Amino acid sequence: MTDFSRTKSLFHLPEGMVYLDGNSLGPLPIAAEKHLLNTLRNEWGELLIKGWNEAGWMNKPNQLGDRLAKMLGAPPSSIMLGDTLSIKVYQALAAALDLAGERKIILSDTGNFPTDLYMAQGLIRSLDRDLELVLKQPEEIGDSLDETIGVLMLTQIDYRTGRMHDMAALTAKAQALGIITVWDLAHSAGAVPIDLRAANADFAAGCTYKYLNSGPGGPAFIYVAPKHQQNLKPVLAGWHGHEAPFAFDLDYRAGPAIERMRIGTPPILQISVLESALDVWDGVDMEDVRQKSIELSQLFIELIEQQCPQFTLASPRDAAMRGSQVSFQFAEGYAVMQAIIERGVIGDYRAPDIMRFGFTPLYLDEDDIRKGVAIIADVVNSGLWKRDKYRAKKAVT
Amino acid sequence: MTDFSRTKSLFHLPEGMVYLDGNSLGPLPIAAEKHLLNTLRNEWGELLIKGWNEAGWMNKPNQLGDRLAKMLGAPPSSIMLGDTLSIKVYQALAAALDLAGERKIILSDTGNFPTDLYMAQGLIRSLDRDLELVLKQPEEIGDSLDETIGVLMLTQIDYRTGRMHDMAALTAKAQALGIITVWDLAHSAGAVPIDLRAANADFAAGCTYKYLNSGPGGPAFIYVAPKHQQNLKPVLAGWHGHEAPFAFDLDYRAGPAIERMRIGTPPILQISVLESALDVWDGVDMEDVRQKSIELSQLFIELIEQQCPQFTLASPRDAAMRGSQVSFQFAEGYAVMQAIIERGVIGDYRAPDIMRFGFTPLYLDEDDIRKGVAIIADVVNSGLWKRDKYRAKKAVT
Repeated sequence: MTDFSRTKSLFHLPEGMVYLDGNSLGPLPIAAEKHLLNTLRNEWGELLIKGWNEAGWMNKPNQLGDRLAKMLGAPPSSIMLGDTLSIKVYQALAAALDLAGERKIILSDTGNFPTDLYMAQGLIRSLDRDLELVLKQPEEIGDSLDETIGVLMLTQIDYRTGRMHDMAALTAKAQALGIITVWDLAHSAGAVPIDLRAANADFAAGCTYKYLNSGPGGPAFIYVAPKHQQNLKPVLAGWHGHEAPFAFDLDYRAGPAIERMRIGTPPILQISVLESALDVWDGVDMEDVRQKSIELSQLFIELIEQQCPQFTLASPRDAAMRGSQVSFQFAEGYAVMQAIIERGVIGDYRAPDIMRFGFTPLYLDEDDIRKGVAIIADVVNSGLWKRDKYRAKKAVT
Repeated sequence: MTDFSRTKSLFHLPEGMVYLDGNSLGPLPIAAEKHLLNTLRNEWGELLIKGWNEAGWMNKPNQLGDRLAKMLGAPPSSIMLGDTLSIKVYQALAAALDLAGERKIILSDTGNFPTDLYMAQGLIRSLDRDLELVLKQPEEIGDSLDETIGVLMLTQIDYRTGRMHDMAALTAKAQALGIITVWDLAHSAGAVPIDLRAANADFAAGCTYKYLNSGPGGPAFIYVAPKHQQNLKPVLAGWHGHEAPFAFDLDYRAGPAIERMRIGTPPILQISVLESALDVWDGVDMEDVRQKSIELSQLFIELIEQQCPQFTLASPRDAAMRGSQVSFQFAEGYAVMQAIIERGVIGDYRAPDIMRFGFTPLYLDEDDIRKGVAIIADVVNSGLWKRDKYRAKKAVT
């Protein structure tokens, strides 16, 4: 049984804040500071260039990839760390299109995170060979699969509503029709149990700064099913993915297996923090996380619906259909979100009218939920959110 | 007049080490630790998601881009920070190919850093429209320009020899023939005076962890000449480059000007260190840096040629033709480099037989050069390097 009071003690959580936004950016793992200072002082500071060998920097992207692989039900040497999610989605999609042969359609849904769609649009434009990105509503995807489709590219858990696709079922259906699958796990990794091997996914990508708590701009990752690795010709063919980066050949030769998904020099300081963030997961059972996430989410829905009847649940009511976030719709959601943030309850807002709240059992408990709902209800029912200052828009991530 | 004893005092330099590898990875700026801890504790730790607005994280990539622009003779809003050099070269090359129209040839040289060539090869393969990467020797480039060439892609300063292309002259000649130019400034930024405006470069990219001292895996940058910015359709069309990232539109619309060169979420911790690293440059005159770099390099060449006649100078003898590094060839250069590194003189090795030494006036003085040469000469002339342990190969960056 996972000891969540222990995991909670491993994070720095600001005094008086109820943080329901770990689905956007996780909090600071306390051990990260010491570990990062060691990387800074004793590795970079003392070893300088020798750090690449002596501090093992060169191997961090695949070592941490292997740690993520264990968490995500993937075999060793199938996940590589690096870059941003946008870049990793691009790598995966480009490789998937190579495998899709003559088929021209990339199918996705309107709940995919926009950067995935944008990266697809940029790739399609540059390739200039009649490819087409077709978007359906999330619930229409299953019935939209047919043999004209080359690639199915989806974010498993909808960033707006938390609605969760059945990755295994859709992958099986897609593959039976000869469709290659690309799964974005941005809102899945660390949020719900994932078994990439059982789901038989072809490609996946994800980020580490949400439920995995690696800090702002922490590196992303890519998964390539072993059966696809050796035939994959990287479109972003950087020197770190070369078979022999330090031979300085003039011609690219792809490195073995997942190594070819490396591109440039990895961000060692961000990676150092990710290491501490992953340490928190040692001894954590993902099934326990899921169970507690559902309890916290259900409690939140119940209390909000009792106390803020103005809000409409935007997430699936069935917990099995949801990731680890809950969204409510409210026409003035932006202003409400600003007002509750000022009172110390941190969620976030997604246009046009969605208020999102993330549930992260590693550092949230029932008391936090009750405290958070009390403040939200007070803000809503007192009309505090109607003040002009809360309505003036600014960028929110 | 730049006070180099002051700048030297701003770096952590390991006791007893003579660091001649700032062309690979610069040393730790002392102020970086405090600044990074502030980012970690007070920004990420206390503000969490609010850091994107309240700590100004969203604007760091363009703000620091503008600081770099000042150093590189570029106008405001023409440089964007982010990703790795490989990715930034890819963005620049893809955009340059769009401008090159029907021309099929990308011209580069054998002294270009391999990742630039690899990224071009990956892009050419994916575009599948008869594009060709043609490589010449560095000194043949000027005479190889003609109207069949679409893009001239060069690293200004050769990573092996330090040989420097005349960026302004080659750009002018190329542009007169309708060729678009892409300059890699990896070994130029912070090493030699750069005036992107005067050189009239179309595109440039560079990295910050060499002469700019931002730490292992620090972010790269891209320059796009203002005249090209508005027409540029990004191939890596990430959400941070969208006109309105937080509108979450389903369609990509490129952001204004250089903003469209953003891709995904920027690495805030690495950026924090870069900020401290750039602070060191305040009050530094790049002409003074160049002058002192030449003095140190000349002294090094003189002393090495006196004391190690076995070595052959691989760099141009004329300082005006050289960047801020000096390379010597020696058949057993690998073993020599391992042996001198063990004695505390850090340079690096590039296959097949090149020993590279970087000259970085911000933290190196004449004493360092004399100390370093004494150790190199001792290792070479005593035959210490012939021990088996120095000949056993391992990866070196």
